[in-house]
Amino acid sequence: MTYSYQGLFEFTRRVFEGMGCSLADAELSSKVLLAADLRGIDSHGLARLLGYVRLWEVGRVNAQPQMHIVHETPSTATINADAALGLVSAPYAMKVAIEKAKMVGSGWVAIKNSNHFGIAGYHAMMALEHDMIGFALTNASPLVAPTRTTERMLGTNPIALAIPAHTEPAFVADLATTTVSNGKLEILERKQQDAPEGWVQDASGQASTDATVLRKGGALLPLGSNEQRSSYKGYCLGSIVDIMSGVLSGAGFGPWVPPFVSFLPLPQDPVGEGLGHFVGAWRIDAFRPAEDFKKSMDIWIQRFRNAKPINPDEPVLIPGDPERLAEAERMQKGIPLIAPVIGSLKEAGRKFGLNFEEVF
Amino acid sequence: MTYSYQGLFEFTRRVFEGMGCSLADAELSSKVLLAADLRGIDSHGLARLLGYVRLWEVGRVNAQPQMHIVHETPSTATINADAALGLVSAPYAMKVAIEKAKMVGSGWVAIKNSNHFGIAGYHAMMALEHDMIGFALTNASPLVAPTRTTERMLGTNPIALAIPAHTEPAFVADLATTTVSNGKLEILERKQQDAPEGWVQDASGQASTDATVLRKGGALLPLGSNEQRSSYKGYCLGSIVDIMSGVLSGAGFGPWVPPFVSFLPLPQDPVGEGLGHFVGAWRIDAFRPAEDFKKSMDIWIQRFRNAKPINPDEPVLIPGDPERLAEAERMQKGIPLIAPVIGSLKEAGRKFGLNFEEVF
Repeated sequence: MTYSYQGLFEFTRRVFEGMGCSLADAELSSKVLLAADLRGIDSHGLARLLGYVRLWEVGRVNAQPQMHIVHETPSTATINADAALGLVSAPYAMKVAIEKAKMVGSGWVAIKNSNHFGIAGYHAMMALEHDMIGFALTNASPLVAPTRTTERMLGTNPIALAIPAHTEPAFVADLATTTVSNGKLEILERKQQDAPEGWVQDASGQASTDATVLRKGGALLPLGSNEQRSSYKGYCLGSIVDIMSGVLSGAGFGPWVPPFVSFLPLPQDPVGEGLGHFVGAWRIDAFRPAEDFKKSMDIWIQRFRNAKPINPDEPVLIPGDPERLAEAERMQKGIPLIAPVIGSLKEAGRKFGLNFEEVF
Repeated sequence: MTYSYQGLFEFTRRVFEGMGCSLADAELSSKVLLAADLRGIDSHGLARLLGYVRLWEVGRVNAQPQMHIVHETPSTATINADAALGLVSAPYAMKVAIEKAKMVGSGWVAIKNSNHFGIAGYHAMMALEHDMIGFALTNASPLVAPTRTTERMLGTNPIALAIPAHTEPAFVADLATTTVSNGKLEILERKQQDAPEGWVQDASGQASTDATVLRKGGALLPLGSNEQRSSYKGYCLGSIVDIMSGVLSGAGFGPWVPPFVSFLPLPQDPVGEGLGHFVGAWRIDAFRPAEDFKKSMDIWIQRFRNAKPINPDEPVLIPGDPERLAEAERMQKGIPLIAPVIGSLKEAGRKFGLNFEEVF
C-alpha cells in the first residue's frame, strides 16, 4: 500500500501530540521521521513510530523536555536533552552548532540524555542552506561485534556529512559503520532469504548467512566484514562515533547504550545518561569563498559521475543520489508501507484514539 | 637488517638538510617520517624518502617554503603550504588548529599546495598532550576505483583520530579508506603471493587476486570491497576525505591530485594547487571536564579490551594497540628494513654525498 506524505505527516503529528509533544515538536518529529521514509531509508522512519511511543509509555522518552546547554565555548556546546526524542534534540543542537559556526567559523555540539534521532542525514543537511558543511553522528543500541569478538558492543553508529554544491545537488553521505544495517536483514527475513556472506556472524563468532541470526545471539559485522578485508576499520569508525557521541557528551556508550526496544531493561550499571549524539557545522567561507568552493564541488560531482562505469547499465552514484531520487518519487507517488508497519501504525494510533484509516 | 632509530634519524635529517631544509624542518620531517617506521607502517616511512628527494629534484617540493595563512576565522584557517613537504606543513597546521582550539574550543585547518604528509596518525596525535582530540585527513594520488567504475579516482585517503585516556594509552585510529593500502600489495608481490579476494579489481572492473594488478590498469577497492558488502561506504568515506582535504582548501582533488612519483606528469588541467590536507582539534574541556572524559575513556577501553574473544589466542585490539606495541619494540630493538628500502636510502644519500653505511 502507498500513502501520501501529507496524510502520513498528519497522522504522525497527531501521535506525537498524543504523547504530549508541543505542536512545534510534533511537527518537527514527524518531519524528521518521515524524511527517512521519503528518502527510502524505511528502517528509520514510520517503522519506528510505535517504538518511540512504547519508550514514552515506559517513561524513557520525555515529550516535554527542558533541553539545556550544560557547558559551552565559542565553538562548542554540550546539551542535556532531558530524555527528549532525538528527533527534537538533534535539530535543536544543530541550530546551536550553526549559530556558533556563524560567529566563529565552526560549531560542535555533543548531546547526552537523548533518544534515537532518526536518520543522521537529516541533521547534517540542516547546514546546507547556510552554505555550511553539516556533520552528524549518533550511537545506538549494541548489535555489532568488534573484530575478533563475539560480543555486541557497538550500534550501527552512522556517520553523516552534507556538503553543498553550486548547480549540482548536494553531496550527502549517511552511512552505518557496519556492512549493512539491521533493516536489510529484516527485509531478507521477511522474504525468507539468506544473508550474503559478510553481513553477520553467529553467536560463536563464525561467519553466517542466517538472516535471523541476531535473534540467536549473533551480531552484525563492522564495515569490511572480516579481518582479512579490514573489518577492524569499520570497528574503528563505529568506535569513533560511539566515543564522540557517548563519551564526549557524557551519555551511555558501547554496551551501555540504552536499547531502542522498551521491553529490554536499561543497563544495570549506567556509565552515562541516555543515548548520545554529536553534530556540527563548518562554515565554508571560513576556509574559502563559498561560491568558489561550490563551483569546485560541481566539478568534483560531474567528474565522478562521468567516471567510466564497469557496466553502462549501472551508472556511478554520487553520495545522496539514491535518497534524492527516492524522495522525488515518493513525494509525488506516495510512500509505500508494508503490512507489519501499517499494523504498527494502527496500534500506535489506537493508543491515542486515532484511527489510521480515517486520516486518509 | 635492523637499524637503530637514532642512526636512521641522523641519516634522514642529513638528507633533508641536503635538500636545503632548515635544521628544524629536517628534524621535524625525519621525526614524522620515522614515526611510520617505528609504528610498523613501513609503507609510509623511509620507504618513501627517495620519493620525496625525487619530487624535490623535479621542483615539486620546496625545501624552504613560505607557508602562510590565506584565510581565517577564530576557529578555522586555510594555509598555502608553498609546496612544502607535508611532513612540515601538516604539523605547522596542526599547531594553528591547537592554538585556535585553546582560544575558542576547536580549531580546523585546511592546507593546499602541499605534498605527502607521512602517517596521518602523527598529526592527529599532536593534540593528545593538550587534552584535545586530534583529527587529520589527506588526499593522495588516485589508485582507488569508486564502486561501479573502472577509473582510479581517489587515493587511499586516510582518516586519523587520536583520543586521550587517563591511565590507558590513547585511542589512535589511523586508517586508509580502502580495504588495504598499496603497501600490503607490494609485500605480497615481493613474496609472489596472490591478494585475498576483495582487495583489488582488474582493468575491466572485475574482482582480482593478482597482487600486481595495479600495474596492469587495475585499482584498489574501497573499504567494504564490493557493492554487496557496501563498498560504496568506503567510496563515500574516501570522497569525504578528498573533499575536505582538496576542495575545501583549494588543492587538487580526485583524479587531479598530483602523483607521488616524480616520473608521472602533473595533471594537465589542474583544478587546485598541489595536494590537500585537513587537520583539527577539539578541546575536551570544551565539552566536559577533561578528567571525567579521560576516566570514561579508560572504562571504554577496558570494557572493549575485555570483550569476549572468538579465539582466546587472538585478543581484541583497541585502535592504536598494534602501532604502540611496534613502537616500543622497534625503539628498543631497532627498525627492520628490507633490501629494496636500504638500496633506495643509499641512493638518496649518494645524491648529497652521504654514505648510508657510515652513519651506523
